Amino acid sequence: MDKFKLIFDGEKPKYIQIYVKIKNMINNKELKSNEKLPTIRKFAKFLEVNNSTIVKAYELLEKENFVFKIVGSGTYINEKKKNIKSDIYESKHDIIPFHIGNPSSEMFPIDDFKKAIDMALKEDGASVFEYEDGLGFYELRLELKKYLKSKDINTSEDRIQIISGAQQGIDIVCKTLVNYGDIIFTEEPTYNGAIDIFSNKGAKIIQIPMLNDGIDIGILKLKLEKIKPKLIYVMSNYQNPTGISYSEYKKKKLIELANEYDFYILEDDFLSDFKFYSQNNMTLRAYDNSSRVIYVKSFSKILMPGLRIGLLDMPYNLKDKLCEAKYYTDISTSSLIQRALYYYIRNFDWKKNLYAIENIYRKRFDKMKNIIENKFDKRLEYYISCGGINFFLKLPKGYSSSDFKQFLLKRGVGILEGEIFFENPIENRFFRLNIASTNVDQIEEGMDIIKKSLDDFLDGYRYNNDFKNEKFLY
Amino acid sequence: MDKFKLIFDGEKPKYIQIYVKIKNMINNKELKSNEKLPTIRKFAKFLEVNNSTIVKAYELLEKENFVFKIVGSGTYINEKKKNIKSDIYESKHDIIPFHIGNPSSEMFPIDDFKKAIDMALKEDGASVFEYEDGLGFYELRLELKKYLKSKDINTSEDRIQIISGAQQGIDIVCKTLVNYGDIIFTEEPTYNGAIDIFSNKGAKIIQIPMLNDGIDIGILKLKLEKIKPKLIYVMSNYQNPTGISYSEYKKKKLIELANEYDFYILEDDFLSDFKFYSQNNMTLRAYDNSSRVIYVKSFSKILMPGLRIGLLDMPYNLKDKLCEAKYYTDISTSSLIQRALYYYIRNFDWKKNLYAIENIYRKRFDKMKNIIENKFDKRLEYYISCGGINFFLKLPKGYSSSDFKQFLLKRGVGILEGEIFFENPIENRFFRLNIASTNVDQIEEGMDIIKKSLDDFLDGYRYNNDFKNEKFLY
Repeated sequence: MDKFKLIFDGEKPKYIQIYVKIKNMINNKELKSNEKLPTIRKFAKFLEVNNSTIVKAYELLEKENFVFKIVGSGTYINEKKKNIKSDIYESKHDIIPFHIGNPSSEMFPIDDFKKAIDMALKEDGASVFEYEDGLGFYELRLELKKYLKSKDINTSEDRIQIISGAQQGIDIVCKTLVNYGDIIFTEEPTYNGAIDIFSNKGAKIIQIPMLNDGIDIGILKLKLEKIKPKLIYVMSNYQNPTGISYSEYKKKKLIELANEYDFYILEDDFLSDFKFYSQNNMTLRAYDNSSRVIYVKSFSKILMPGLRIGLLDMPYNLKDKLCEAKYYTDISTSSLIQRALYYYIRNFDWKKNLYAIENIYRKRFDKMKNIIENKFDKRLEYYISCGGINFFLKLPKGYSSSDFKQFLLKRGVGILEGEIFFENPIENRFFRLNIASTNVDQIEEGMDIIKKSLDDFLDGYRYNNDFKNEKFLY
Repeated sequence: MDKFKLIFDGEKPKYIQIYVKIKNMINNKELKSNEKLPTIRKFAKFLEVNNSTIVKAYELLEKENFVFKIVGSGTYINEKKKNIKSDIYESKHDIIPFHIGNPSSEMFPIDDFKKAIDMALKEDGASVFEYEDGLGFYELRLELKKYLKSKDINTSEDRIQIISGAQQGIDIVCKTLVNYGDIIFTEEPTYNGAIDIFSNKGAKIIQIPMLNDGIDIGILKLKLEKIKPKLIYVMSNYQNPTGISYSEYKKKKLIELANEYDFYILEDDFLSDFKFYSQNNMTLRAYDNSSRVIYVKSFSKILMPGLRIGLLDMPYNLKDKLCEAKYYTDISTSSLIQRALYYYIRNFDWKKNLYAIENIYRKRFDKMKNIIENKFDKRLEYYISCGGINFFLKLPKGYSSSDFKQFLLKRGVGILEGEIFFENPIENRFFRLNIASTNVDQIEEGMDIIKKSLDDFLDGYRYNNDFKNEKFLY
């Protein structure tokens, strides 16, 4: 039994740690084919965990074909281990995850937030399981008003709508403002989740190219002369996927144009809390005195993604309709989560946590920027990322990033193909590298692999591609 | 200080209890105009609560105009108490809430669920703050598969999509299946939240009347001969707002028709867990072997509404698209809530809790049904509610339920006007009475008030209405 000894770390779920432990024991031949695993009860007692934790670990091992069960007898090691990497579990642990945009959990203020949840459960009684007011928990809105004030956004608690994450914010705005056939402008490239929502509503999306200091104002004006959009969807700080921040001039200009041509700006702010290397990290909303900006704030990248909470700051004339759309979208955001966030902001040092996260991001960012912009590979083009977590690169002509993705996956590096960020992708050469889930060492290692893989890929690709074309000719 | 003494009950939030206490003291003249309230610190110490609890109570009192603040000095009782009832706080506490459809909190398994949250926080580490798999937490889906099995629904864990409440389920199905201009059938009357979603997507809604044993199959067939709907949205058990359950014949017939005329059935199941007085409480999904039924299950009425969790059971051919739509709707349902629900189902006696809730609902239902169906007032028509929580009644010709609602509000009873349940309301005489937030005594008291108010309303109304018409003529 002693060989099953395991000291848990506080981070990953215990059943995942047990799963990994046994998987490693199989790989290291410490466990042999057809060897019986300890019974659930015995193992649980030995590790001092709940029975259900062992059950879950065994279920996962079975699902991944490492073990098999004989009813009434027990769980045994499989003869043949499946060699295919499992998307869900392996990729999280073994691949350098430049394809993932979620912050890694060492940045989460887990202990403080657990305490905040306890406070909500203790102080607020049954309320945490009831519906909140339509706009969200009143006291949380008061706190968030203060938070926005610290970002030079002057608003009122009755203009703040609590939402279940920024994605829902975009959905609600779309439901409120966009009718079938309406025209929406976005940056090109832009966040694919927004494209999905606008498309689903039957809107026509027109993308305006991004330059290294923000959207191409010249092209935007040309389009506006001919076409009236309902709204423009933008990320003015550390844009996804390019990492570009707008210059102050362009931020102000965009608001001017919104007034001149009468359209709304939907500003998606997922990272403006940080000051990296952009001219400034002010939001469009902070510059707006004319109720042109609908402001969506995500806490996924600056707190924890799994919370599913965010806010919408709404112009007065839209707030009733937006609140109604929130209602028929999901009635209300979890009261428990809203109240826990309230107690967290009120009782713990969120600013300090933000500062810590910023430091982690900045180190990773510096490492990645340094590698990319210092003679990494002259065949790759890229946008100049100002900060944040994203880098957007481009393969030479004739090569496909989805093929490169597959190529790199076999070498242990994940990248995200760039096509999804375009409404009408005319080429498939872009790919995004995200640093949120990685660390400095992984960035070094991963970029090294990419650099070394590039020659093989570009050479081999031509052969394969010609081969494909040949096949196509027949 | 002693007059501020307060023994907390475990149910309402402490700050609300303090708010109510002080409000009552003002009403009872125990506190006089311009009298100073205790300082926050002193009061908090005295009541042994957090400072923030007092702050919240005072903020609420200020918002409701009971007190005013002088910066640097303190909080004082206002001279003039605003007499208008506040929608948010007063209506919850002082009005008999036949207009509210949410279960009252004494039905919540609060202590067990708190323990389940603790387990999730303790066992699953940082995972509770990360995104779950697209379909939702795997182990929860396994548990819910078993739960569905107990309702004669055979499905697989990869057909179950965890959602943030049933409302979101309807939204996701709409996003997946419904295009602008598509035709949707619903019952008439039907749940207004569904009408809102379908309308927002630009669908054309056609309503088919409800009879006392389910939808009018004759009219449905006539419509189907001429029009092809994308889907029909139904509640086959304890329908909202009528309380009607379909006969077994009609349940089976509807599935037959879906196959014959090639459309989907979106079944919204919010209460089938209970066996009241309907012929059977089987779901359409349980009868369906042909992947015609998309099944949405809410836990709001049978567990706790504020959780914002539910499930979608999806036909195989739709599941990828539905999962995608869930993703761009809100990325993922809160991991913490999913895992807490998992631990709750796994470790506590959900069945027992369901049984307890059923008993509470049944007593209220019996009381209400008894009153309505025993010579309550022969001028009112009504649907024969089979069970559940809703009753749908109709005023005599020439009277408006929204006027009646205002009339009753002044007498301390809330009702919900019925117009919202119709896509094209041709009359405004219906109103809904819901028993979920009430108790047996309140039902007796409230119905007594309604009965006594009817004469006054019907007599007075003619006068007012004539008056209105006169004005209109000029």
